[in-house]
Amino acid sequence: MKNIDRRHFLKKTSLSASALGAASLLSSFAGKDTQRPKESSYMGDFAAPKLKTVKAAFIGVGARGPGHLKFFASLPNTEVVAISDLYEDNVEKCVKIAQKNTGRHQNIKSYHGDENKWKQMLVDVKPDVVFIATNWKNHAPMAIEAMKKGAHAFVEVPIALTLQEMWELVDTSESTQKHCMMMENVNYGRDELMYLNMCRMGLVGELLHAEASYIHELRSQMKEEERGTGSWRTPHYAERNGNLYPTHGLGPVAQYMSLGRTEDNFNSLVSFSSPARGRKLYAEKNYGSDHKWNKLNYKGGDMNTSIIKTTQGRTIMVQWDETSPRPYSRLNLVQGTLGTLAGFPTRVALEGGVEGVTKSHHEWAEGEQLATVYEKYDHPLYKRLNAVSAKSGHGGMDGLMMYRIVECLQKGLPIDQNVYEGCLWSAVGTLSERSVASGGAPQNFPDFTRGNWKTTKPLGIVS
Amino acid sequence: MKNIDRRHFLKKTSLSASALGAASLLSSFAGKDTQRPKESSYMGDFAAPKLKTVKAAFIGVGARGPGHLKFFASLPNTEVVAISDLYEDNVEKCVKIAQKNTGRHQNIKSYHGDENKWKQMLVDVKPDVVFIATNWKNHAPMAIEAMKKGAHAFVEVPIALTLQEMWELVDTSESTQKHCMMMENVNYGRDELMYLNMCRMGLVGELLHAEASYIHELRSQMKEEERGTGSWRTPHYAERNGNLYPTHGLGPVAQYMSLGRTEDNFNSLVSFSSPARGRKLYAEKNYGSDHKWNKLNYKGGDMNTSIIKTTQGRTIMVQWDETSPRPYSRLNLVQGTLGTLAGFPTRVALEGGVEGVTKSHHEWAEGEQLATVYEKYDHPLYKRLNAVSAKSGHGGMDGLMMYRIVECLQKGLPIDQNVYEGCLWSAVGTLSERSVASGGAPQNFPDFTRGNWKTTKPLGIVS
Repeated sequence: MKNIDRRHFLKKTSLSASALGAASLLSSFAGKDTQRPKESSYMGDFAAPKLKTVKAAFIGVGARGPGHLKFFASLPNTEVVAISDLYEDNVEKCVKIAQKNTGRHQNIKSYHGDENKWKQMLVDVKPDVVFIATNWKNHAPMAIEAMKKGAHAFVEVPIALTLQEMWELVDTSESTQKHCMMMENVNYGRDELMYLNMCRMGLVGELLHAEASYIHELRSQMKEEERGTGSWRTPHYAERNGNLYPTHGLGPVAQYMSLGRTEDNFNSLVSFSSPARGRKLYAEKNYGSDHKWNKLNYKGGDMNTSIIKTTQGRTIMVQWDETSPRPYSRLNLVQGTLGTLAGFPTRVALEGGVEGVTKSHHEWAEGEQLATVYEKYDHPLYKRLNAVSAKSGHGGMDGLMMYRIVECLQKGLPIDQNVYEGCLWSAVGTLSERSVASGGAPQNFPDFTRGNWKTTKPLGIVS
Repeated sequence: MKNIDRRHFLKKTSLSASALGAASLLSSFAGKDTQRPKESSYMGDFAAPKLKTVKAAFIGVGARGPGHLKFFASLPNTEVVAISDLYEDNVEKCVKIAQKNTGRHQNIKSYHGDENKWKQMLVDVKPDVVFIATNWKNHAPMAIEAMKKGAHAFVEVPIALTLQEMWELVDTSESTQKHCMMMENVNYGRDELMYLNMCRMGLVGELLHAEASYIHELRSQMKEEERGTGSWRTPHYAERNGNLYPTHGLGPVAQYMSLGRTEDNFNSLVSFSSPARGRKLYAEKNYGSDHKWNKLNYKGGDMNTSIIKTTQGRTIMVQWDETSPRPYSRLNLVQGTLGTLAGFPTRVALEGGVEGVTKSHHEWAEGEQLATVYEKYDHPLYKRLNAVSAKSGHGGMDGLMMYRIVECLQKGLPIDQNVYEGCLWSAVGTLSERSVASGGAPQNFPDFTRGNWKTTKPLGIVS
């Protein structure tokens, strides 16, 4: 079944995805699609025409949206043209956020009240770009529609929920020649940028193994019963069993290794989940037996552990746990023939020692010792932009990401994360579910680039 | 193929293991052997007749042997009756070690000079117990022969190299009614004992996930070219691709989870290795092109990552890397519904916080804060014996293990690690090699207990 496009196969055999059922069978359809339509073209290094002023519309300004909007609105030569959300109060609050301090953005159109208002917004205001920060199931449909209506789409993580949606994102981006970037903010963290810099400098030697996770105890999100993240994430966590939220940890290490960009690519994945306990216990403890959280069948294991194998044979251990009582970590580890860089806490070990800090790779440079490391190896982008972005969300990474998005659009540069990367990083969700469901059987990654990754430039060190 | 004994199948079909070839096929034979011979009996909770004086012979006193011998010789009611090693100087040195300070052990017989002298030793001196600390390939044959000659066998890690050898160890132990313990010293480390204690106290709640590793950069062992550990380990590391040395990290977490003892058992495993780079580079850098280390084909990946799934659905992430430039770690992590215990560095997080130390599970109790934790939760065995064992190897764990071995033999108690645990922990070697060779395909663990694990008592808290 390799190298057969799943959608073509489905069409030819008249089988629906749901009729196919078994995860192990579906996994056979992960081969590359060689059938790119003639009118479409590859988007890996795509640079769009420069935008003198970036006119943006926002969909979803409940949780993540306001932060994106606030920083975007503060940048020169930007314009917030419209905001859409289910709830009027969210929109009103964000109109004020955009206008406050800037004195600009005086003609924002508001869309709210039902689930389809965003579609009318796209038709009415014809934005250059759309920022999407809604619940997961709307990410792909909204991004696809935004591109079809002529806008570049910038989407929260994960970019989509199914491989079929990911192929549709790729196909739409390629046929419309619009950017579709998953906004993986963690790739703009200070440590992540420094590690990218150190990897590019060759300090770690040949990269062989990495580790990435999203370990973040968030059971209390279940208190958001009717509105807010927990209201719609909780059913996902109950009903699906895999790594549902892989990209915060994986994005940065995939960039260190240049996966999907000449050097290497995602090949296959194995995955196991622990038993599902924590959320059921939390519901029982905090809600009455009739509460909706006590009527879910909790199937999603508290901890999911997966291992990715790359085309060059490298390994990436990926974990996800938003349930267990333990401190936050994204692991953020990469090791090579000359050293190891790790996160949570930040630690650096290099063959022969870190100059002026440690004597050998048998000890970590950590804590206060890192001052020397940051001074030497901080990424040029961080050094240039930290003063501007420091007060934005998540220690500055959110603002730095938004600054780069706007900068790339205004200068007509390729964006830092292409549509294929967003899909590859997010595909771990579906593939881990399939592996878990089939007793840990390996699952192949689709090649969303249809072979073009082999000539796509690695992300350079932008200064 | 499930539930068919591999050896019986091989006998019936006249196929040899090597003729079968494919790892994925071999993995089918991991089912339990229901054919225990009538004259044999299960050894899970076995207690041997009390030994007033423990008479011990030692095979292999080059690297690990002298430490075992020194501490054994220092204990009351012990006698070193014979020592065997390839090299005369090793034996002579150990005779002196046994006699120095003790004034006892004056009739030690020496065996050296060729590879079979240990067999004569077993016949000559009829020891109660034999301690085996030779190269890996001799572990199983020597332990089997020792039991057949009437001695309890205590073997260095791993207990054996193949599943066939493991079955032979089990069968021999069951038919001779002799102990066969793999000497996993790490299970006697202070932190490991404390975590076992905390797990048994219920502080972590229901255990769901664990992590174990042996990350220890030991490339310099390659300098032992003719004699010593590196001389025979290096070809293993070159020729085999998997986790060749899993037990130091895995033994303790398997004990926390009571795997193979009523509560749960090992079920299956998936494994991927990174590319093999470090040892080849090390050989090229340090030796001439004609040197034997430059004539090996290095196939064993620098980092191996595996995931074990237990019968109850718990997960254990297991890693092995003796090559990459990074600091030592065994990970030593266990997490459950009420907290997480981790190692390297030692860190404790409990739901609601560690009393008097932290305020919630979102922060680790670590560093100096741990004084309170040790004071409260140190294992009774550690508290009783630390004064005796503290100066033995590896921070006291070696002596504590030896003390317990001798104590159990003298009191006629079941030993702390039964033959099935030694085999299950070591089986990760073979099973990971098979999974790696078959692109990450899941491999089933054999049930060395033939179903008896379901009624084998978990290791209690011995005071």
